[in-house]
Amino acid sequence: MCQLLGMNCNTPTDVRFSFSGFAQRAGNTGDHTDGWGIAFFEDKGLRHFVDHDRAIDSPIAELIRHYPIKSQNVIAHIRKATQGLVSLQNCHPFVRELWGRHWVFAHNGDLKGFAPKLHAHFRPVGTTDSELAFCWIMQELWKSHAGVPSIEELTITLQELASRISPHGTFNFLLSNGEALWSHATTNLFYTERCHPFAAAQLADEDLTVDFSTETTPQDKVAVIVTAPLTKNETWTQFEKGVVNVFVDGRLYLGQSHSKS
Amino acid sequence: MCQLLGMNCNTPTDVRFSFSGFAQRAGNTGDHTDGWGIAFFEDKGLRHFVDHDRAIDSPIAELIRHYPIKSQNVIAHIRKATQGLVSLQNCHPFVRELWGRHWVFAHNGDLKGFAPKLHAHFRPVGTTDSELAFCWIMQELWKSHAGVPSIEELTITLQELASRISPHGTFNFLLSNGEALWSHATTNLFYTERCHPFAAAQLADEDLTVDFSTETTPQDKVAVIVTAPLTKNETWTQFEKGVVNVFVDGRLYLGQSHSKS
Repeated sequence: MCQLLGMNCNTPTDVRFSFSGFAQRAGNTGDHTDGWGIAFFEDKGLRHFVDHDRAIDSPIAELIRHYPIKSQNVIAHIRKATQGLVSLQNCHPFVRELWGRHWVFAHNGDLKGFAPKLHAHFRPVGTTDSELAFCWIMQELWKSHAGVPSIEELTITLQELASRISPHGTFNFLLSNGEALWSHATTNLFYTERCHPFAAAQLADEDLTVDFSTETTPQDKVAVIVTAPLTKNETWTQFEKGVVNVFVDGRLYLGQSHSKS
Repeated sequence: MCQLLGMNCNTPTDVRFSFSGFAQRAGNTGDHTDGWGIAFFEDKGLRHFVDHDRAIDSPIAELIRHYPIKSQNVIAHIRKATQGLVSLQNCHPFVRELWGRHWVFAHNGDLKGFAPKLHAHFRPVGTTDSELAFCWIMQELWKSHAGVPSIEELTITLQELASRISPHGTFNFLLSNGEALWSHATTNLFYTERCHPFAAAQLADEDLTVDFSTETTPQDKVAVIVTAPLTKNETWTQFEKGVVNVFVDGRLYLGQSHSKS
């Protein structure tokens, strides 16, 4: 299995603290050593880094840990291969363009017997079940909408599509087009929302503490989504299984909390 | 205007020497300071780095100068904005997926009155004439072939497409799908082919010399393509204007030399 990390914010924020703890799981506190990747939106632009080395000692991961790239939507992935060889083309996150926007997708899980018909123009470059699922999702989004739909409409479509893939196995994923960050879980996926008053957070995977109150303004809002909680002293909420959630401007905007309220 | 750098090899080779000299033009020996980017194929996989900072002092360019990423096809670009704002989405090279392969494109020049009809599924994310031309080329390739065509067929199609865009202005470009590297020039674009016996090469833009004979085997072949010659003591050949050339395994495979021989 793999692990996922996502961040959605209302102001461009750097992900170094969370990524630093997450990357420990690629060799130190976990065995997700079959490549990794991270994508940062900056407006409609995208920085996309993938590596077949371990995130714990990859020179590119070292850059990410020290260079404060600020973004409102980030998706990262560390891989433990289940389907598909260890190679660059099998590293998540995957990227495609649709309607003049980049779309970024990362998956944790294993799909069995998922063999959809790809009759549009999205084709996997690598050999993972994950990229195949992403291509099918992009195809179905393209068929369902004439252009970039509203976040609400897109969430409804994604809920339908996720429900069709989920019976094939574990289907935890993160998706972003730079406007919002969608998540879906069938097993383990957690989130936390950081906002004023900010406090100090202590990583679970390494001895590192950051006092967010010195790095933020009272208006900042940051949501972090991850396969297993990253910090020891924050509240992490497990996602309800089978529900597509969407984060906008650093808060859960549509999904489980809203359906319960 | 911008500047282009391409490398095509018969064995995975690192581009640090050439990139180091090229990056000097983004602040030191040139004023191409409005962002930059580089893409490296590894098999079908792709590493794609873009930055809106100057390549001369960008932390990501610093990584590229020191981390020996080995690739058979590399495309790099330093930008001086003529159309489109300075932003990440306007940095070359641009990437799209077609027929299960990544395609990478970078352009040097300025197109006037080029407003093609985009009726397929490739849309620009940014606002440059370059990305628009790339989307149109991808659309026309997709319409012309049912799957990845042979290098020969693709070269014929690209020649037709380049001839339709060129009347709109300066259209120097590099394109690769990881199998080959295509180039087209309407103004300045040069290439050199390095092969056994390798010698020392001295950069034109900084005081740096590399003795390739200590880093290569007799079988290695490397072609380097660039807007203005990178070294002082190698033979650089200017491309014939209006001809699409293709490099395979480190040698000019089809194009001007062959049409003359």
